[in-house]
Amino acid sequence: MITRLSNLFLRTLREDPADAEVLSHKLLVRAGYIRRVAPGVYTLLPLGLRTVRNIEQVVREEMDRFGAQELLFPALLPKEPYEQTNRWTEYGDSLFRLKDRKQADYLLGPTHEEMFTTAVKDMYSSYKDFPVTLYQIQTKYRDEERPRAGILRGREFVMKDSYSFDMTDEGLEQSYQNHRKAYQAIFDRLGVDYAICFATSGAMGGSASEEFLAISPAGEDTFVRATEGDYAANVEAVVTQPGVERDPAEAPEAVEHDTPQSETIAALVQWANDAGVQVEGRAVEASDTLKCIVVKTKQPGAKEWELAGVLLPGDREVDMKRLEASLEPAEVELASEEDFAKNDFLVKGYVGPRALIANDVKVYADPRVVRGTSWITGADAPQRHVVGLTVGRDFEIDEYIEAAEIKEGDPAPEGQGVLTLERGIEIGHIFQLGRKYTEAFDVQILDENGKRSIPTMGSYGIGITRLLGVLAEQRADDKGLNWPVEVAPYKVHVVVANKDKEAAEAAEQLVADLDAAGIDVLFDDRPKVSPGVKFKDAELLGMPYVVVLGRAFKDGKVELRRAGQEAEEVDASNVAQTLVGLLK
Amino acid sequence: MITRLSNLFLRTLREDPADAEVLSHKLLVRAGYIRRVAPGVYTLLPLGLRTVRNIEQVVREEMDRFGAQELLFPALLPKEPYEQTNRWTEYGDSLFRLKDRKQADYLLGPTHEEMFTTAVKDMYSSYKDFPVTLYQIQTKYRDEERPRAGILRGREFVMKDSYSFDMTDEGLEQSYQNHRKAYQAIFDRLGVDYAICFATSGAMGGSASEEFLAISPAGEDTFVRATEGDYAANVEAVVTQPGVERDPAEAPEAVEHDTPQSETIAALVQWANDAGVQVEGRAVEASDTLKCIVVKTKQPGAKEWELAGVLLPGDREVDMKRLEASLEPAEVELASEEDFAKNDFLVKGYVGPRALIANDVKVYADPRVVRGTSWITGADAPQRHVVGLTVGRDFEIDEYIEAAEIKEGDPAPEGQGVLTLERGIEIGHIFQLGRKYTEAFDVQILDENGKRSIPTMGSYGIGITRLLGVLAEQRADDKGLNWPVEVAPYKVHVVVANKDKEAAEAAEQLVADLDAAGIDVLFDDRPKVSPGVKFKDAELLGMPYVVVLGRAFKDGKVELRRAGQEAEEVDASNVAQTLVGLLK
Repeated sequence: MITRLSNLFLRTLREDPADAEVLSHKLLVRAGYIRRVAPGVYTLLPLGLRTVRNIEQVVREEMDRFGAQELLFPALLPKEPYEQTNRWTEYGDSLFRLKDRKQADYLLGPTHEEMFTTAVKDMYSSYKDFPVTLYQIQTKYRDEERPRAGILRGREFVMKDSYSFDMTDEGLEQSYQNHRKAYQAIFDRLGVDYAICFATSGAMGGSASEEFLAISPAGEDTFVRATEGDYAANVEAVVTQPGVERDPAEAPEAVEHDTPQSETIAALVQWANDAGVQVEGRAVEASDTLKCIVVKTKQPGAKEWELAGVLLPGDREVDMKRLEASLEPAEVELASEEDFAKNDFLVKGYVGPRALIANDVKVYADPRVVRGTSWITGADAPQRHVVGLTVGRDFEIDEYIEAAEIKEGDPAPEGQGVLTLERGIEIGHIFQLGRKYTEAFDVQILDENGKRSIPTMGSYGIGITRLLGVLAEQRADDKGLNWPVEVAPYKVHVVVANKDKEAAEAAEQLVADLDAAGIDVLFDDRPKVSPGVKFKDAELLGMPYVVVLGRAFKDGKVELRRAGQEAEEVDASNVAQTLVGLLK
Repeated sequence: MITRLSNLFLRTLREDPADAEVLSHKLLVRAGYIRRVAPGVYTLLPLGLRTVRNIEQVVREEMDRFGAQELLFPALLPKEPYEQTNRWTEYGDSLFRLKDRKQADYLLGPTHEEMFTTAVKDMYSSYKDFPVTLYQIQTKYRDEERPRAGILRGREFVMKDSYSFDMTDEGLEQSYQNHRKAYQAIFDRLGVDYAICFATSGAMGGSASEEFLAISPAGEDTFVRATEGDYAANVEAVVTQPGVERDPAEAPEAVEHDTPQSETIAALVQWANDAGVQVEGRAVEASDTLKCIVVKTKQPGAKEWELAGVLLPGDREVDMKRLEASLEPAEVELASEEDFAKNDFLVKGYVGPRALIANDVKVYADPRVVRGTSWITGADAPQRHVVGLTVGRDFEIDEYIEAAEIKEGDPAPEGQGVLTLERGIEIGHIFQLGRKYTEAFDVQILDENGKRSIPTMGSYGIGITRLLGVLAEQRADDKGLNWPVEVAPYKVHVVVANKDKEAAEAAEQLVADLDAAGIDVLFDDRPKVSPGVKFKDAELLGMPYVVVLGRAFKDGKVELRRAGQEAEEVDASNVAQTLVGLLK
């Protein structure tokens, strides 16, 4: 296909759009790939649509390769199935809801577990029909609170979502691995720089859920990677290496002290060192103190909030996201001033575990607060702390949870060095969902023995339009976009920067030759546009190969440009052949 | 591509779905192409999706061929542009409206004139950028009052919509003709039996709007075709051949009569013939009488309804759709009992034109009620009629309009014989829209002289998912579907109906050979399914070629079946070659 810039529905901009913060957003708008219609709602202009179609095609090929079957559910969905799984309510404000002319409730599908599950229930009844993996490439809707970064986080977006149905857990593991391999093939072909992150604790639950994160400072998700080895995980999924257990009886006795004005950890450490307190023969550090964070939790369906304590080493802040993930599906919030006021035993700045336990408040703790460890912590009285309060002797932990912030340099699991913190953009997610939806819809399948059995599901997603933004973000520089060959809307961009009739004719021949070889070409044939503007546009639009017919054309030479490489002079007579060779 | 029926996500049904009335709906559900999710909202199952994609591809190729450019607008659209054109209100209950979490108003796009127009306004400013034709293949939403016939009239459906922008009327005519030719090529390639119908009066306005109607008794639209020549038109667009004018002075004088119990035309004709009344020396017929139908109209923006009279030859019923189309954008209704009660001069059953005129009621008339013609009509008094009331002498017509029903055998225009009435399904519409939207959004473009000029638009649509239903409807019989090659989800369906190992092996080789030749094959490899069930499924699913490896396989023969043709025996050894030949 040959597309001429003299005709293409395109206007490139020299100025960044006012609402754009990240590079991909700026460049995709400036280069005329996307155009904003409403917050988080974008039009794909011709170049953007071609690029998205190429991404879709790579995804489709790799899904088909392992036998997944494509179909297409509607976006407009009736309320009932989503009520049956409670997601009509659970989605809260993120769900676009609407009524039809008969006042029946509908939603715009944010994800389609309900639809796939009921389709399988209606159409299949025997184990012989399984396993089956179904997918769609479909437009989804989520009313994001803060749509941002152009198409990186939109409210209308295209996703590939797939669902596997297996009769056994081993089958699910196989379907999961099929997806994992297909996703690796997809992201490798697309040229994305990504990490596969445990989304739930790898140490505890195998690989029941993993996220594919494109590595990018523009990402909203923080994740960790090991310096040695390929361990990577969501911050929520990082498992703290527990402390070493000791015999609590061997710890020195706990002693209370007056500690004036020591509400902060820094002040407490200062006091301890001024007072000559020592821990194992050395000065006190923040990590020798114990923070008692008072929170309140609410179980699903419960009406009342309940107080709880979270014990962390004093050098760690609480990470609310990690805490929330640990306590899910319960809700959690920090205790308010009012909560402190209502509960006399909570002495702000001096809360310790003993008052919590004495008042039947549940005590959660970081895995480092292990049996036999001694801590400097609040004595539950104003300006008072206790030194040497020891787990398993002076107080007990109800439950260990992950609630502390992760820091660069924390130990990685299994001797893989230490952790580094990075930012990423979620581009894929694979998840062993189990029987949540098949049970909700009572999907009964006859097994080999004629008994009824409920199949187990996996759910898997790839953000298609998001990948347009991710590839832009990872590969662009401030001059413009830079598409990998497999994704580029056109593989070659031919620029005529010479007013001689011969150059124009040679360019026409070149694009015809490339087209004949099945190579899609963008042809800058605009007669009254200066070479400088054409070069700037070529840089901005970002095709993998740019051929310039310029001054050297009179000597039979054209310039071949590739992103990140020096331009090279090539014989005009065989540039088409050269490109065919490079592209096959 | 080879798809095995042993794996395909499919369950064929022997029973018609309870809610299905038309053949295509029944068969598409029974053959597992579509599945209902809500009224007018369907899932495309794997076979249905492949078929729709093939239809899309034909449309895309023919659009691209004349230089139309594809892009993709969102379905979720902000209210403001649709308010600017008043369509937010005009669409009434057909528009799906919703609010986002910030209570901003959105709609699900039923059509995208506003979006295309504002995109062109933002991106283009000079005549050099024109003409431009843009299109999308996109999911649209209309909250139909009566979704019906499966995907023939859905509430979520896929359309190709395109819009042309030209600086001159001649340019618009060219863009319109480009679409017209492309649509003919598309529907010809798809193998649809269709007619191109004037959607507005062909005699008056050239071809400003035409509809492509697939001919089908299941269609909701009635249209006419000429018995000689290719004239076809929507019923709304048919132009009545006017009567011959005469000198009113030459008509016999009008005479009033007592006509007891003559409220109906039949009774009036009976009275006239009993009374010995003659018209040009012959007995009176219904077409010699004149109906005065009292209606009321409301102009857009007006608060009050106004009375009006519609005069029709007595052998014609009023066709409200034609009347509405004639009076658009005004609304029109038949006068109510209350209207008669409030207006003493309206004597029910005996209304004539004279009382209407005397009371300043506007008089519309059928084109046959021409100057100099004489009529038997109401005398505006109970049980009284007038004979010989003559246009241009006894009363005048304010405006001629099309309001009478069309009948089989009415004269066709320009000596093309007579009209036949047929039913059709709208599959395409092309429309010279003019400057309605470019003016609404004040799209100012600098012309060659540096003056501001507003471009003129065309709008054009093809119902993509509807075509799936149309092709099913037109080509199926009660045993099953029958796809044309270009559209079929698989070109060949290979059935193993022989338990010998050699037959199974030969089938594997055959599908591999077809696949290697680029032919998509559906392979019924199900080991435990009887030949009878396999044949029934093959008939139901409707691939263009079915190859059966049956009893004759031991003699080196296979059966090749084509819809509507006798099955023929072919040498097993060269059936692949035969098929490649037939399909290339």
